[in-house]
Amino acid sequence: MKIGVVGLGLIGGSMAKAIKMHTEHTVLGMDIIESVVCKARLLEAIDEELTVDTLKDCDIVFLAMYPGDTIAFARKNAAYFKRDGIVLDLCGVKEAVCPILLKIAQENHFIYIGAHPMAGREFSGFSHSMGSLFENASMILVPFHGTRIETVQSVKELCRQIGFGYIQISTPEEHDRMIAFTSQLAHVVSSSYIKSPTALEHIGFSAGSFRDMTRVAKLNETMWTELFLDNPKHLCNEIELLIQHLEEYAEAIRTGNHEKLFQLLKEGRERKAVVDGETAEEK
Amino acid sequence: MKIGVVGLGLIGGSMAKAIKMHTEHTVLGMDIIESVVCKARLLEAIDEELTVDTLKDCDIVFLAMYPGDTIAFARKNAAYFKRDGIVLDLCGVKEAVCPILLKIAQENHFIYIGAHPMAGREFSGFSHSMGSLFENASMILVPFHGTRIETVQSVKELCRQIGFGYIQISTPEEHDRMIAFTSQLAHVVSSSYIKSPTALEHIGFSAGSFRDMTRVAKLNETMWTELFLDNPKHLCNEIELLIQHLEEYAEAIRTGNHEKLFQLLKEGRERKAVVDGETAEEK
Repeated sequence: MKIGVVGLGLIGGSMAKAIKMHTEHTVLGMDIIESVVCKARLLEAIDEELTVDTLKDCDIVFLAMYPGDTIAFARKNAAYFKRDGIVLDLCGVKEAVCPILLKIAQENHFIYIGAHPMAGREFSGFSHSMGSLFENASMILVPFHGTRIETVQSVKELCRQIGFGYIQISTPEEHDRMIAFTSQLAHVVSSSYIKSPTALEHIGFSAGSFRDMTRVAKLNETMWTELFLDNPKHLCNEIELLIQHLEEYAEAIRTGNHEKLFQLLKEGRERKAVVDGETAEEK
Repeated sequence: MKIGVVGLGLIGGSMAKAIKMHTEHTVLGMDIIESVVCKARLLEAIDEELTVDTLKDCDIVFLAMYPGDTIAFARKNAAYFKRDGIVLDLCGVKEAVCPILLKIAQENHFIYIGAHPMAGREFSGFSHSMGSLFENASMILVPFHGTRIETVQSVKELCRQIGFGYIQISTPEEHDRMIAFTSQLAHVVSSSYIKSPTALEHIGFSAGSFRDMTRVAKLNETMWTELFLDNPKHLCNEIELLIQHLEEYAEAIRTGNHEKLFQLLKEGRERKAVVDGETAEEK
């Protein structure tokens, strides 16, 4: 099979490397930065450069750009994708992307499936990409009505081959609601947490919990600004809910309410155990 | 040297094991649970049981209990500590503990130094204790006026020997202000974060950032309730500051303010770089 990857950043670069590492498929790669394409070829992350002309040769194309660029690319090159070939975007939001790409796909006779690999690093760009990035990670696939089950199956198979440990099938709405909580909120919290002036004095006073809490503050603000603004409703809901919970703890601490604080912490511990699958949900 | 450890939980147990692992000192251990003392002897985490009678033989005693129990123990056994021996508490708060223990020490002619090993696990009790728990961690020491520099030096030396990578010298006030942010706030956030109902559906939709953000929700609510209520002012300040920052992000997202959101995220990334020592503080 010939597989195209458009955008050789952290995710696209890792995707190319993972396919080369784990399969016999031919990988074609494209990037707006010419030196990245050269580097990818030299490192054998790709077999050859992907061009508008060779797009039609690809059985599968991964669009690994920011949401706006992904849509723009698909619009501009709609006619060049292989007829009945499979195109997947790898964007971190789906409601803002999927309906548009689905329409383009239907009008241009290619198959579109949304995808979001749940893996990342607090670094950007091809030079940080790794063929092992997806090892044991979850791949969220968003297939649409009319897609043949065998097509989804073949994509799942490819995902398994390149290391994904879990394949989640979802809808754009569910995806965005879940991601607002599991990923976007974490980045908002981390970025907020680090802003306390106390952070500047942390050396010698900090350990694992501080490190974990602030890790993803090291983010790519261009990408995350776009992702957040493509998912405002769900994300704001989660931020507001978190603030409500934080206020409950603050109130119990401020008023010295031992019983209430104990209860809040106990409920948090129990919820964590349920979330981790350690016990049944408390009644 | 004979070293006593009172309370063989996660921290006290790890302290006993670390001393046995790295030094030739004799370790005496005490716990309110008799079976824990037996287990500690069988595993050679301690050489012998510590009793009120043998307390006077210990050159150094670590008090590894919750703050209230630590104070109660020191009060009750004040007369039994070795004259001019060193007693350290290992509590996670200092303003609520140090002045009281210092007074007891002065009245009973032993030397008191506050201590807080910046290491932990999301598990409690002797069975989770590890001799390697303190490897490369920071030890915060809170010595008081009149303590001989050689005494502090000998404690630092012992800390280095048992694995600590960094020794921080602090005051009760500074300690509690810093810990409110680096550790206590992280536990409040983690416990709050996990309470979104969305958490129950996370499987297949989550990755490292969710895992990191919720790790310490698995906490010992008895201990953390006491620690939080012993440090309400600093902790509430940090929670309120975090809420203010979260609200800024929410407002920018809700109103679709691209420029503002980008700026907030950029500032967070830059602050994180400064905190990690990667660049100089931005002007």
